[in-house]
Amino acid sequence: MDKELSRFLTFWNLLDDTEKELLNQNAIVKNYLKGVTMHQGSGDCLGVVLVRKGQLRTYMLSPDGRDITLYRLFPGDVCILSASCVLESITFDVFIDVEEDSEIITISSALFQQLAKQNIYVETFGYKMATNRFSDVMWAMQQILFMSIDKRLAIFLSEEIKNNKSLELKITHEQIAKYMATAREVVTRMLKYFSQEGIVKLSRGKITIIDETKLKKLTLK
Amino acid sequence: MDKELSRFLTFWNLLDDTEKELLNQNAIVKNYLKGVTMHQGSGDCLGVVLVRKGQLRTYMLSPDGRDITLYRLFPGDVCILSASCVLESITFDVFIDVEEDSEIITISSALFQQLAKQNIYVETFGYKMATNRFSDVMWAMQQILFMSIDKRLAIFLSEEIKNNKSLELKITHEQIAKYMATAREVVTRMLKYFSQEGIVKLSRGKITIIDETKLKKLTLK
Repeated sequence: MDKELSRFLTFWNLLDDTEKELLNQNAIVKNYLKGVTMHQGSGDCLGVVLVRKGQLRTYMLSPDGRDITLYRLFPGDVCILSASCVLESITFDVFIDVEEDSEIITISSALFQQLAKQNIYVETFGYKMATNRFSDVMWAMQQILFMSIDKRLAIFLSEEIKNNKSLELKITHEQIAKYMATAREVVTRMLKYFSQEGIVKLSRGKITIIDETKLKKLTLK
Repeated sequence: MDKELSRFLTFWNLLDDTEKELLNQNAIVKNYLKGVTMHQGSGDCLGVVLVRKGQLRTYMLSPDGRDITLYRLFPGDVCILSASCVLESITFDVFIDVEEDSEIITISSALFQQLAKQNIYVETFGYKMATNRFSDVMWAMQQILFMSIDKRLAIFLSEEIKNNKSLELKITHEQIAKYMATAREVVTRMLKYFSQEGIVKLSRGKITIIDETKLKKLTLK
């Protein structure tokens, strides 16, 4: 697993042999099925998550059950917020759902904590990854709080095209609403408008982008 | 200035003498008047800000000029987001306004960058401070997105009582609206309701809390 861990963990070359061995022996590879909640807030402290395959969604949850997507994780991504108990500066909790069947490497919180204590480069990595996510969250917040819904939907669809490398997106209005932290009705209304404008074609459980140029224009509005 | 810097900068004892001297010689003390915008987004990279006296407000700004308060800074606080150009993981920009006449120690971005490059503990400090602010921002977002206005206003007033050590708050509805990232009308309406409930007494430019127990109850709702 050496090689793979060294790709995810930028501090790899600054570990001594014992530390490398410890990681090698104790990193756990596990498969998660789509729909599972992998990490749930404060009760949990799963550890550092490395995404080998699949897709995860990180979100925050209101007391009455509404959720707001903070960012999504794709192959190659590292999530440190699922080890928030290790980093004292993180005083909030997030939830993580599995969006597609996923293969995940986990480094337990206890192990990460031990390494962070004895090796400053591991601690720095933790806080740096957290700061990366801070940037993601600020971007999401700016979208939610400042941007018009049409622009946000256009940006969302453009990213989906990129992620799926296809103009045909298999996604429900409900799912889009979750990712965009808005109501399903709002998404449906806006998609109907996009369809009238000849930007998309809607069919059951599928959205096909038929005018990508027009969509791009909306993202730049 | 040694002693003071060592209180703000938790990496102080991990610096060598040259590094300490460099900080001592180049930290700048400056007074800022209330109302000034001290740091404005991307154009700027002021440096690391240490608050000696006064109060600052950090916020994000929409393209059409609305602003959302992220957190406030009080004496003893460190702000790293004003040196975002130094930390590559920070890809967003914030604005900082001076809320009260303030005395500020600034460590220039160039100096902080030099130290962070040659001393890993300085770099870690930077990312750790950023992660602290991430927690603040998540708290603010949870309030803005999830909490009812009456609870938020009650929490805000309780904090003001604590900060000012007084039940008499000299603050306008406009200012409260800014801090809470809501509209002035909303604040005025809610304060009127608080006043009818016997929680506060309103007078020109002043809010007096007359039933702190009732106010506390609202914060726990």
